[in-house]
Amino acid sequence: MEKINLSETLQKVREVNPLVHNITNVVVTNFTANGLLALGASPVMANAVEEAADMAQIASSLVLNIGTLNSQTVEAMILAGKAANWHDIPVIFDPVGAGATRYRTETAQKIMNELKVSVIRGNGAEIANVVGEDWEIKGVDAGDAKGNLLDLAITAAQKLNCVVVVTGKEDVVSDGEATYVVANGHSILTKVTGTGCLLTSVIGAFAGVEKDLLTASVAALAYYGIAAEQAAQKTAELGPGSFQIEFLNQLSLVSGEDVNLYASFKKMSGGM
Amino acid sequence: MEKINLSETLQKVREVNPLVHNITNVVVTNFTANGLLALGASPVMANAVEEAADMAQIASSLVLNIGTLNSQTVEAMILAGKAANWHDIPVIFDPVGAGATRYRTETAQKIMNELKVSVIRGNGAEIANVVGEDWEIKGVDAGDAKGNLLDLAITAAQKLNCVVVVTGKEDVVSDGEATYVVANGHSILTKVTGTGCLLTSVIGAFAGVEKDLLTASVAALAYYGIAAEQAAQKTAELGPGSFQIEFLNQLSLVSGEDVNLYASFKKMSGGM
Amino acid sequence: MEKINLSETLQKVREVNPLVHNITNVVVTNFTANGLLALGASPVMANAVEEAADMAQIASSLVLNIGTLNSQTVEAMILAGKAANWHDIPVIFDPVGAGATRYRTETAQKIMNELKVSVIRGNGAEIANVVGEDWEIKGVDAGDAKGNLLDLAITAAQKLNCVVVVTGKEDVVSDGEATYVVANGHSILTKVTGTGCLLTSVIGAFAGVEKDLLTASVAALAYYGIAAEQAAQKTAELGPGSFQIEFLNQLSLVSGEDVNLYASFKKMSGGM
Repeated sequence: MEKINLSETLQKVREVNPLVHNITNVVVTNFTANGLLALGASPVMANAVEEAADMAQIASSLVLNIGTLNSQTVEAMILAGKAANWHDIPVIFDPVGAGATRYRTETAQKIMNELKVSVIRGNGAEIANVVGEDWEIKGVDAGDAKGNLLDLAITAAQKLNCVVVVTGKEDVVSDGEATYVVANGHSILTKVTGTGCLLTSVIGAFAGVEKDLLTASVAALAYYGIAAEQAAQKTAELGPGSFQIEFLNQLSLVSGEDVNLYASFKKMSGGM
Repeated sequence: MEKINLSETLQKVREVNPLVHNITNVVVTNFTANGLLALGASPVMANAVEEAADMAQIASSLVLNIGTLNSQTVEAMILAGKAANWHDIPVIFDPVGAGATRYRTETAQKIMNELKVSVIRGNGAEIANVVGEDWEIKGVDAGDAKGNLLDLAITAAQKLNCVVVVTGKEDVVSDGEATYVVANGHSILTKVTGTGCLLTSVIGAFAGVEKDLLTASVAALAYYGIAAEQAAQKTAELGPGSFQIEFLNQLSLVSGEDVNLYASFKKMSGGM
Repeated sequence: MEKINLSETLQKVREVNPLVHNITNVVVTNFTANGLLALGASPVMANAVEEAADMAQIASSLVLNIGTLNSQTVEAMILAGKAANWHDIPVIFDPVGAGATRYRTETAQKIMNELKVSVIRGNGAEIANVVGEDWEIKGVDAGDAKGNLLDLAITAAQKLNCVVVVTGKEDVVSDGEATYVVANGHSILTKVTGTGCLLTSVIGAFAGVEKDLLTASVAALAYYGIAAEQAAQKTAELGPGSFQIEFLNQLSLVSGEDVNLYASFKKMSGGM
């Protein structure tokens, strides 16, 4: 990837309207679907073992999120993931709360072991848990990252053999060789539930139209962060309710031009 | 049905506050409940096999929606549906995504075979799938309808022996003899998840107070479409987040007078 | 409890950010999480039998809500509740719709029998059902309470041996000895789904930082009611959609000073 054209990737999402199959947690289903619709993608949720594989194979990408996992949905995730792998459909994984309970940690391992994951997105503590590093975690919301997120992303990408997105105050994207830091976004995102989960699904939408997964991830992060910045500016002082609604507005309003104007990212030196 | 009095039907909903029992998908539960409350109905969700039948028999209507079906909820739907049938409580069915996977198609068939459904509501592709016609479908959102929605609604009503509501740019309601076209609504509804599902539940609320199901369906469609038009006008350019909230407002604000003023529907020649 | 310092309790929640573990219904997960985040608490949802106990024991409080119960979530509630009891973590119970079906009534009994519940919060009909008194109930929303809520709260607290919060036009809090009436709140809360459920989770957040559960409950009720009053004032005439969003704003904006200024509560004579 020599050149990242963010606005073209966003435009492609809006032209293609990729079908994003989400097997996600019960807290964020509505917000995820509305966010994907606002972006211009087509969300579908289907988490029954009877149909998860059938739905995955007609989708442009598959997003797996263990925010409220149970044995049925985990089984559906594996079935859907195998169907997606077989049909070369990218699988995006959000290991929500990995490390918070043994079941989440083990399920995250199971998914990484049994499936070919294309992109994994989490905060520092979650990604560290998946690669077996020691990081602090409290519930499903990680505190401020201790340690170097840049190193973590690169190490994780090399160990997990996929694109790794570590989100925090700044976001890091790495495939183990090339690494980018994206500085868009706003702290009020942490006051609205599911903003991390929706981001993962937005990466799924971009990955559904752009085969270069570094480009897809950086474009998704910049677009998403800019929408948050615009929404935060328009709703300053109003509170998280108003922000949440304006954020959905901005996900539909942020244009390719906005992305070119406001994207804040840089390529770091490759490798470790 | 000689004369359709839309405003009276709306008023009856607001006086009676019918209890609408929804067994619906996990994406739209919150939006459905809030929409029904805004209208003036009383929503209840109960999808456990242990209580679905008990809840259905104290409800004014039962709404079944297969948007995120699984074996447990399908079993609960059948139990609730049989209880509703036994007590002459109308059953409204939304075959979300019928045709997208074999499991959805088979479940839709199972529901139509084992229950007496009073009203079925879907887009063209979904209704066509249920009656066994060839239509295109992509995920759970149908593309533009190919073919004649009017013919489809009439044929479906005759084959399925119930009131059929086919929604699209214009909506068609038919019981196989009389057929109505309702032209209210707004395209931005397609950018908010669950607006089709909520419509089905709103038809359920109207069917809970009005035995003539053609009247109930036409009144529900006109009321719902007018609320969308008002909301779209008030939030033009703002985006789907603001529309969604204003739409909930309008569902509570649209009056019988508004319905008389703005309803746009006509009766088509009966039969085929 | 001689003196109730409401603003200090609110401040403590915002300093400590208690982790509130919710096993709740699928209608209100998103609203509950966003409400807790707006308050300043950390929500977590985990309802799988495989991890419910592990999550409960790292939480500051556990909230159980049977709004859309099924055999799996009930089993998870019992496991989580026993873990919470073992670690002296307060368990807050919301018996949504107790009395509407036999399954709900029996599950509410099971939870009260097998767990040590610290606070139970419901409307008059639900609390009466749990203590075995005759009250009317329709679906999950009780009508106007018949009978004396004050007597009900005191009797329930004595029989159930926990703090009882009966909500209605005015709210009553009793531990069987001391009893408070809180008059904050607004009737439009009944037009937004999950406002009762979120209140229970907010009581959970307060109970997670304040060992005196009467103080925690009264402080939570006053804070919550004031947020509703402020939101209703700012969105008068707009409708329930706008109220819902402004309410989330106010949950983050209402300050300790506001609580001192606007709290409306009084202590009733102790005992019966």
